[in-house]
Amino acid sequence: MVKEYLYDEIANGIASQINSGVLKSGDKLPSVRMLCRDYGISMNTAKRIFLELEARSLIDSKPQSGYYVSRLPYMKLPLPEVSRPSQKANSNDPDELIRKVYTNMGKEGLTLFSISVPSGLLLPLAKLKKEIIHATTALKDGGAGYEPLQGNLELRRMIAARSLSWGGNLLESDLITTSGGMHALSLCLMALGKAGDTVAVESPCYPGILQVATGLGLKVLELPTHPVTGLEIEALKKAIPKINICLLVPNFSTPLGSCMPEEHKKEMVSLLAKHHIPLIEDDVYGDLCFGMQRPKCCKSFDEEGNVLWCSSVSKTLAPGYRVGWIAPGKYKEKLLQLKLAHAISSTSIVQQAVASFLKRGKYENHLRQLRKVLQENYLNYVEAITAYFPEGTKISRPLGGLALWVEFDKKINTGQLYDLAIKQNISIAPGRMFTLQNQFENCMRLCIGLLWSEEVKFKLRQLGNLACMMLSAS
Amino acid sequence: MVKEYLYDEIANGIASQINSGVLKSGDKLPSVRMLCRDYGISMNTAKRIFLELEARSLIDSKPQSGYYVSRLPYMKLPLPEVSRPSQKANSNDPDELIRKVYTNMGKEGLTLFSISVPSGLLLPLAKLKKEIIHATTALKDGGAGYEPLQGNLELRRMIAARSLSWGGNLLESDLITTSGGMHALSLCLMALGKAGDTVAVESPCYPGILQVATGLGLKVLELPTHPVTGLEIEALKKAIPKINICLLVPNFSTPLGSCMPEEHKKEMVSLLAKHHIPLIEDDVYGDLCFGMQRPKCCKSFDEEGNVLWCSSVSKTLAPGYRVGWIAPGKYKEKLLQLKLAHAISSTSIVQQAVASFLKRGKYENHLRQLRKVLQENYLNYVEAITAYFPEGTKISRPLGGLALWVEFDKKINTGQLYDLAIKQNISIAPGRMFTLQNQFENCMRLCIGLLWSEEVKFKLRQLGNLACMMLSAS
Repeated sequence: MVKEYLYDEIANGIASQINSGVLKSGDKLPSVRMLCRDYGISMNTAKRIFLELEARSLIDSKPQSGYYVSRLPYMKLPLPEVSRPSQKANSNDPDELIRKVYTNMGKEGLTLFSISVPSGLLLPLAKLKKEIIHATTALKDGGAGYEPLQGNLELRRMIAARSLSWGGNLLESDLITTSGGMHALSLCLMALGKAGDTVAVESPCYPGILQVATGLGLKVLELPTHPVTGLEIEALKKAIPKINICLLVPNFSTPLGSCMPEEHKKEMVSLLAKHHIPLIEDDVYGDLCFGMQRPKCCKSFDEEGNVLWCSSVSKTLAPGYRVGWIAPGKYKEKLLQLKLAHAISSTSIVQQAVASFLKRGKYENHLRQLRKVLQENYLNYVEAITAYFPEGTKISRPLGGLALWVEFDKKINTGQLYDLAIKQNISIAPGRMFTLQNQFENCMRLCIGLLWSEEVKFKLRQLGNLACMMLSAS
Repeated sequence: MVKEYLYDEIANGIASQINSGVLKSGDKLPSVRMLCRDYGISMNTAKRIFLELEARSLIDSKPQSGYYVSRLPYMKLPLPEVSRPSQKANSNDPDELIRKVYTNMGKEGLTLFSISVPSGLLLPLAKLKKEIIHATTALKDGGAGYEPLQGNLELRRMIAARSLSWGGNLLESDLITTSGGMHALSLCLMALGKAGDTVAVESPCYPGILQVATGLGLKVLELPTHPVTGLEIEALKKAIPKINICLLVPNFSTPLGSCMPEEHKKEMVSLLAKHHIPLIEDDVYGDLCFGMQRPKCCKSFDEEGNVLWCSSVSKTLAPGYRVGWIAPGKYKEKLLQLKLAHAISSTSIVQQAVASFLKRGKYENHLRQLRKVLQENYLNYVEAITAYFPEGTKISRPLGGLALWVEFDKKINTGQLYDLAIKQNISIAPGRMFTLQNQFENCMRLCIGLLWSEEVKFKLRQLGNLACMMLSAS
C-alpha cells in the first residue's frame, strides 16, 4: 500500500513538473538508479513510474541514453488563469446560445468540435451490436418487462467490481442505474435540493448542470477553478456558509479538462462532510485518463456516505444507450424513491448489453485503445492550434477526457466566431455556454473525441484563420 | 362527419345506460330498424352500433331474436360514490406504504394485483425481440450514438399517423420522445410549474404523479372524480382560481378506470385555455379500450396548443423499453430544452424497435387481442369479486385500461389487508397510495392485466376470504 502511494505520488509529481513547464521538451530525466536512491524505492517501482509517464506520452526513452521529456509543443502556449467568477449566485442563462448550438448540430456534414462525446468511429460498434442481440435472449421477457427498480443486477455487479480501479470498494447493492449520466445528476439534485438552495459548481461548468439546477429553482454558485488542478479549495472554504450542495466533475471536467489532485479530493470530502454538505461527484470522464493509471474518485475518501458518485458509459462506450448509474451513499432510499416516481425503471436491454460487454473483459481493452487515441488527438490538436491560432491564445492541459479549453485574446468574441465558423461547417462550443455570468466570451471548448484526419486538421486551420481575421479586424 | 358523431353518441348512450343499470342483464334492446327510425340513421350505421356494443361485451345477439344486454354480474355490486377529497391542497405523502408495496414486488411467486402493467404473457415478446435485432442494423452506429434531440423520426412519424385514431392530427414535428410515460409527465411538470404552484389532479390519483409533483415543490389539489365519467367539471370550475396546472388521465385512468365523456373533454379544454391553465393529458391507457372504438383525447379539442398530450407503450407493448412521448403544443421549445438538460436523448434502439413494430402494422393486431383479453379478465374478476368478496363491496366500471377499483365497507382497512395478503403471496395496491389525504383507506386497486387462470381466481378468493374475516372480526 505504501509503495502504491509512493508510485502515484512520484509519477504525478514528475508529470506536474512537465505540465507546469519546470521540465521542458527535450530535458533529460533522472536515471532509474537515481530515482531509486532519491526516493528509496525499488528498481521495479522506478521502472513502472517511467513506463507510466511514457504511456501518458510525457516522456520518451532513448536507447542507451535514458528518458527525455517528449514533444510538448503546447508549452509554447500559456495556460489560462484560474477562473474568477463573481462570488454571487447568479442565473443569467445563455439559453439562446445553447439552443442555437444544439439546433445546428443536426446539420449534415458539420465538423462537430462542439460536442462532448467520442466519434462513433472510435466505438466498438460491431461488438456492441452482438451484445444487444445476446441481451434479448439473456433477459427474461427479452427486456420487455420492467426490471428491478435498482437496475440490472449484472451491470451493478460489474460496476462494483470496477470500482477498485478508482480506489472504491462498492457492492452491487450500493448502486442504482439511471438513463445516462445526466439523468443521474438530475435525480441527485432533485433528491438533495429544494427551491432556493445553493449548489456550488466549477467555473466554467457543463451547461446541462447549470440548466438542470436553475430549472429546479436552485441558485448556482460558480467557484474559481484552476485549469489543471480543478476547484480551488480555498474558494470552497470561503463559500461553505453559502452552499447547500456541491456538484463537481473532479476528474477531467468539461470544459477545462482539469483533474483534482488526490490530496485536494481528500481534504474536500472531509470538509464537506463536516459541514453536512452532500457532494455529487460526476465521474463520467474518469475512465478517459491519458496513461494507464486512472485517478481516484472523491467517493474513495467518503467515510460517511456523503458522496453521491455518478457515472455512465456515454463518454466511453455508447452515448445513445443512455446507461448511467449512481452510488448514492446514505441517500439511497431517497434516490430510489425519486427514480421510481420519475422514471419507474431504466431500459433493460441496453444495461444488459453493457453488463455483458464489461463481463467479457472487452471494456478494459476498448478503454486502452480509446485513451491512446484521445491522447494522440490532444497532441495533434495542440500542434494545429499552436500553428494556426492567433497570438495570445491560451489552452488548458487536460490529462484525460474529451475537452480542450481555448482562451483567445479578449478582443475575440467566440459567439461571433461561432456564427462565422458554422458557415464553414464547423461547430464550436462558445465559452459563454459554460457559465451563468458574463464571462468566458473569448473562450471556447473543442472536443478532441473526433477521428483525427487531414480534414480535422484543415478545419482547425480554418477556425484559426477566422480567429486571426477577427483579431486583426478589431 | 355528422354520421361519425352520431354513431359514437348513440353507442355511448346505450353503453352508459347499461353501465348505470338503466338497462339490466337480459333486457332486450331496440331492433336495428327501430334505431334507424328513432335516430334517423342508416341501416349500416345502426348495425355498426350493435357490433361496437357487442365488441365491448355489453350486448349479445340471439339469432332470429335480436340483441340483449349481456352477462354483467357486476350490476349486483354498487358503484363507488363520486370522490370527495378535501378542497385544500395537501401533501401528506404515503411514502412508507408505497415503499413497502414496491419493495415487496420483487419477491418470487407473488400474484401481482398491485402493478399497473400487462403480464409478459400478454405481450408479443418474440416479435419484439426480432425488432430489436432489426434496430441494431437499421440505426446508424447501431444505436450507440446520440439520436436527434426530438427523438427517433420513424417513431414520431408512426405516432403522428396513429393520432387519427383518437381524433388528433399530429405531425412528426409536433412530437418529442421520452424515456417512458412517467418521464414525459415529469418533464411537463418541470416545464410548466415552479415551486409553490398548484396542480389539479383526479382523486384518487396515480401515486407517481403525486410524488413527482410534491417532489418538485408543487402543491397538489385533488378534485372530486366520478368512477365512470372522471373528473367533475363543476368541481374544476370552482377550483380554477386556485390552480396553475391541470394533470389528468381522461381515458381509463388508474386507479378508477374512469373515462371522461367527449363533451366534458371539450368543455374542459376550452375552460382551461380561457384561463391560461395548461392541461397535461396522460393517455397511456387510451389504446386499451374494451371494444373497437377508442375514446378521443382532450388534445383533439385543443385549438391553442394548450394541451400537452403524453403517452407511451409501457401499458400496451413493452414496459421495460421505456418508450414514451409528448405532443407539447406551444410548450415545445421549453420541453426540448428540458429534455436536453435532464436526459440529453432517449435510448435509440428501443424507439427504433417500437417504430418498426408499428410500421409493420403489428401494433393494431396486438391491441385487438390485448383489449379482448383485458375485457374478458375484467368480467372474470367481477364474477370472482361478486362471489367471494364481503357484503358492501363496491367496484368501478372501467371501459378500458388495466385497473379495477374496489371499495370495501369502511371497517376494512386495506393497509392491514395488504399485510395479511402478502403473507399469502398476494400483492394489492391499498387505496391510501392514491392520495395525499386521509381517505380511501377502505379501497384498493386490482390490476386486471394478468393472464387469467384458476390460480388467479383462487387468489381473488383468498383475498375475499381475508376481507370477510376482517369484516366479521371488526
